[in-house]
Amino acid sequence: MKISHIEHIGIAVKSLDEAIPFYEEILGMKCYAIEEVADQKVKTAFFMAGQTKIELLESTDSEGPIGKFIDKKGQGIHHIAFAVDNVNEALNELSSKEIQLIDKTGRKGAEGLNIGFLHPKSTLGVLTEVCSK
Amino acid sequence: MKISHIEHIGIAVKSLDEAIPFYEEILGMKCYAIEEVADQKVKTAFFMAGQTKIELLESTDSEGPIGKFIDKKGQGIHHIAFAVDNVNEALNELSSKEIQLIDKTGRKGAEGLNIGFLHPKSTLGVLTEVCSK
Repeated sequence: MKISHIEHIGIAVKSLDEAIPFYEEILGMKCYAIEEVADQKVKTAFFMAGQTKIELLESTDSEGPIGKFIDKKGQGIHHIAFAVDNVNEALNELSSKEIQLIDKTGRKGAEGLNIGFLHPKSTLGVLTEVCSK
Repeated sequence: MKISHIEHIGIAVKSLDEAIPFYEEILGMKCYAIEEVADQKVKTAFFMAGQTKIELLESTDSEGPIGKFIDKKGQGIHHIAFAVDNVNEALNELSSKEIQLIDKTGRKGAEGLNIGFLHPKSTLGVLTEVCSK
């Protein structure tokens, strides 16, 4: 598996209405897209920092993954996503190396990417995503 | 404040001896430096992913910040570091915007960078660092 760069960092926030002004007015970034991902029960806001996106994640359902994460751990960094050439090939390779997968094959994520998550039990506690265009 | 890119992602691990083979053999990255930062009570290992470094942090003292973090939360993503032109100017600007700072002025960090941390209470739960060369 060849990682070209960090595609994005996912950050769980309680409210995009509160978080977007922080990233824009305090950190000086610009929100360039807002997208709802119904499948994940989140509304997302995107910012660029060099070649990596910051993906803010607001839960749209307290039973969704981000709702549960915030209930348990509070707001904070949720996952890291590595850009690879081909998600399905990467997932197959990881599986062959005994890495526990959340997604056995790629599925559609925000911004039209093909994505797959690895289980943090297999990745030293870091919820890790691989993604490709 | 102008963020050029994400300089690094800091990840707390129990053991570099366990974590480095994971990043090298499973994720396919190459560890290019190991450095002890006595001031922070950590030993660090660095990998490049595009323009962003992965900084693995192993505590050298259970009373240090990474030792306490792992005791409380387990292994996982610890902080995000944004590259800025000048850390002291960035810290001054953030302070003027009522952001709570851990470091009022820059100090020496790993890889010879000038670094400063912001308090997660002021940054929506994300331990945030600014750094410059």
